[in-house]
Amino acid sequence: MSGEQDMVPETKVLAIASHVSYGFVGNTMATYVMQSLGCEVAGINTVHFSNHTGYRQVKGTKTSAQEIRELYQGLAQSYLTDFDVLLSGYAPSAAAVEAVGDIAEDLKRRAESRPGSFFWILDPVMGDLGRLYVNEDVVPAYKKAIRHADLILPNQFEAEVLSGVKISTVADITAAISAIHATYSIPHVIVTSIQLSRLGSSTPTSTLTVIGSTIRSDGSPRLFSVDVPALDCNFNGTGDMFAALMVARLREAVFTASTTPQLKSTRSWVSPDDVASTDLPLATATEKVLSSMHYVLERTMEARTAELAAAADEQDDTDGSTDEQRQFRKHLRETKAGEVRLIRNVHALRSPKVIFRAREWQSS
Amino acid sequence: MSGEQDMVPETKVLAIASHVSYGFVGNTMATYVMQSLGCEVAGINTVHFSNHTGYRQVKGTKTSAQEIRELYQGLAQSYLTDFDVLLSGYAPSAAAVEAVGDIAEDLKRRAESRPGSFFWILDPVMGDLGRLYVNEDVVPAYKKAIRHADLILPNQFEAEVLSGVKISTVADITAAISAIHATYSIPHVIVTSIQLSRLGSSTPTSTLTVIGSTIRSDGSPRLFSVDVPALDCNFNGTGDMFAALMVARLREAVFTASTTPQLKSTRSWVSPDDVASTDLPLATATEKVLSSMHYVLERTMEARTAELAAAADEQDDTDGSTDEQRQFRKHLRETKAGEVRLIRNVHALRSPKVIFRAREWQSS
Repeated sequence: MSGEQDMVPETKVLAIASHVSYGFVGNTMATYVMQSLGCEVAGINTVHFSNHTGYRQVKGTKTSAQEIRELYQGLAQSYLTDFDVLLSGYAPSAAAVEAVGDIAEDLKRRAESRPGSFFWILDPVMGDLGRLYVNEDVVPAYKKAIRHADLILPNQFEAEVLSGVKISTVADITAAISAIHATYSIPHVIVTSIQLSRLGSSTPTSTLTVIGSTIRSDGSPRLFSVDVPALDCNFNGTGDMFAALMVARLREAVFTASTTPQLKSTRSWVSPDDVASTDLPLATATEKVLSSMHYVLERTMEARTAELAAAADEQDDTDGSTDEQRQFRKHLRETKAGEVRLIRNVHALRSPKVIFRAREWQSS
Repeated sequence: MSGEQDMVPETKVLAIASHVSYGFVGNTMATYVMQSLGCEVAGINTVHFSNHTGYRQVKGTKTSAQEIRELYQGLAQSYLTDFDVLLSGYAPSAAAVEAVGDIAEDLKRRAESRPGSFFWILDPVMGDLGRLYVNEDVVPAYKKAIRHADLILPNQFEAEVLSGVKISTVADITAAISAIHATYSIPHVIVTSIQLSRLGSSTPTSTLTVIGSTIRSDGSPRLFSVDVPALDCNFNGTGDMFAALMVARLREAVFTASTTPQLKSTRSWVSPDDVASTDLPLATATEKVLSSMHYVLERTMEARTAELAAAADEQDDTDGSTDEQRQFRKHLRETKAGEVRLIRNVHALRSPKVIFRAREWQSS
């Protein structure tokens, strides 16, 4: 009874992101996801909120940049910084982004003599759908910090902000990723959930595409894509779920890459130029990550439908509340029902049936 | 592939306790333990520390009583308080204990019309080995709050403080538990890890005993004991591990009690008087809890020994540090090596082989 058959190689992760009491986003999502795959996770929480902002009302506090630095100093003074991976997500201010960047630099410095022994995955949480939801000074803070990142996970809007390339056509995606490789020397990029049908592609509107790249030695991108069916629900925390699964699956792919056994001791885990895009550890990891996610989100959809049906039976429309109050109550109920069903579907995190495959991405 | 075969009945838990970035104590321990058994856990963190105090140096912040109340208000305003169980541990001040007590009262009030639908497990964290490690005003705060608790988990010292009975003989244990039942109307009590050999018993010094009781209708205790071998290591977080496992296992035992199917809709899950102490859900849950813990702690001992042996090979005694510095460094190394190995032993949490059995406790 080893119990380890479904677990990834031993991995110690420092996770810096938000914490919510109820539901699954930020570190609350990422911690359990990584733990269930066998990772040891140390969490520094950048906010302490009652729930995620999708509810449209939240109570709680933000962690100051100074408090983030002090928690890290607490780890450092007791020699508790032997992390293999840093995963960083939402930071509530430019100063907090800088603090995270300094922590990453310190961890990189400690690992300098052992190439490949430390890897930083950064989700540059700034906005979505054409709109920033952080202060404007967070953008330059990220542009500075990400130069030390090994893999970044922007959505389409964040890729535009970082690259300076407005993505209006399919070809713009390649240009944006190339610019991110070139401008910031970031070896790995994944742009999460692009709707290609909006960019003039004949891809069905019901398809979301994830496009990733590991840089080649000449600086050019090595692009792959994975299509997944879009689910008709506004989930929260899926970006954090993607990032957390990626920590475990990328390290697993690098450590088990039989054709490139030296990869795990190569700086930033950059595969040799002769590795095809679809054979990249980044690509095979993405296949597993998206397969796990799709299963869990489909189960979440089913559970959501059942929960809302049960709630409808119990509802009382004669309680004297206004239309507006009833609408908001309905919104709260739907948001709660849409919380990702992680706990009871942990088997799909640990042992996904891989149903999505990476293809070489050619934007022409 | 249901993945649920090892999981307890669906259980939504509000967990109020400390959070550490590194290692496993408080909510950091309890959350993962309960999640791995299938519980949904909402956490309100009473401190945000870099590591546990066993390291003898810590950085971080405490949550104020007001912040605890506000996080709960955040849950309440969005209808996110449908908890089956409240698990409460370390609270950093008397005001924080009062806040937790008020939260418990509110949850009890909401569940009033559905007996058995809400249960509060409280670990009255005040001190150990004859010494308080909280402010003195925390004691009366607990004495007030615990009147609403369904199960409390004091250690020997805390049982003395709450009962007013100094435990010097084996018979005193019965007196202390009886007093706790009588004084505070608490239906279930478990006193964790008593060394009976120090109380004049012929039990070997290497044995620790857990003694529990569910009250009878006449107010008398119904006592059982479980012996476990003591492990030669000063673990941190084992009390939190015990409490978290108890949440899942007690609810499981109550919900699957075939001879008393009405128990789960009985106030405070108090078994009928004709149920023998060793057949109590509290007793069978304790057997499973201690069996899981013993396995994990034995694996922790082994891993600790291996980690310290590896560290000894790397050590450099000629680095110019003082004896005192070297001693402290050794202490830090040993404390780190003694962190409970939870992640890779999760199977022993989920599917314990029950190796300890409850016996009827007679102190005469």
